[in-house]
Amino acid sequence: MFERSVRGHEIYEIVRLVRPLVLNSARVVETRLKPHNLTVGMRAVLEILAESGPTTVPTIAARLDLARQGVQRHVNDLIELGHVEQQENPAHRRSVLIALTPAGTERFGRIRDDELRELSELAPECSADDITTTVRVLTALHRDIRRKAAG
Amino acid sequence: MFERSVRGHEIYEIVRLVRPLVLNSARVVETRLKPHNLTVGMRAVLEILAESGPTTVPTIAARLDLARQGVQRHVNDLIELGHVEQQENPAHRRSVLIALTPAGTERFGRIRDDELRELSELAPECSADDITTTVRVLTALHRDIRRKAAG
Repeated sequence: MFERSVRGHEIYEIVRLVRPLVLNSARVVETRLKPHNLTVGMRAVLEILAESGPTTVPTIAARLDLARQGVQRHVNDLIELGHVEQQENPAHRRSVLIALTPAGTERFGRIRDDELRELSELAPECSADDITTTVRVLTALHRDIRRKAAG
Repeated sequence: MFERSVRGHEIYEIVRLVRPLVLNSARVVETRLKPHNLTVGMRAVLEILAESGPTTVPTIAARLDLARQGVQRHVNDLIELGHVEQQENPAHRRSVLIALTPAGTERFGRIRDDELRELSELAPECSADDITTTVRVLTALHRDIRRKAAG
């Protein structure tokens, strides 16, 4: 009974810590993107395209849990900057695919490398095993909390 | 160099996992509070009062990083429900202290016990040590990311 209470308190501490982590990390990402004239939303679209290849706006919207109009606006801004382009969709003549341009690929790769270097320097007193354990615990918590949120 | 890249990717995975965790856990807390006629904001005020004892609206607002007017609205709603009350402030004649009533203390205690029980049952495949490690890693990440966000 005592053990269970300690566990509950510690998991509560985890849930409490992640909120400011989300807010502050979004703020840092935003600051790093500003010189590239990119927003956090535009970066998220670039990431999906880098991971999945050419895809449609509705698919991107579903992956990001965002409204289609919002994603379309990010895509338009990215086209303007030359980072993405529209391609014909061989599967559906009426819809188009959004794809990274070579310049967009290069730019996102550079942003990503800088981010990963900066991330790798965080929490220096925590070991590689500590970090791996944290990924495993958060993955399990995410799975269980999402199930509760849906139910 | 390879090690560093793995670490960066894993920490990126942590940052990526916490966002849906925050959204979904807020959704679950909200659902559990509804039968008590409480919102997530009202619950946050009750928690501060339970932890710190009677305090002023500006102090609560600072602790929660919320606007004073928002906190005052939560306090008014909580007074209406009989969970908190105003007390004279011995330190400043012109300001008042907000304090839990016995009914508010009892209600918040019950909500908290239910939450902790539910939290303790999450991620059952993760050990007590795994959870403790996660708290330690997130505390370190929070410290370093907050420092970057402020700078």
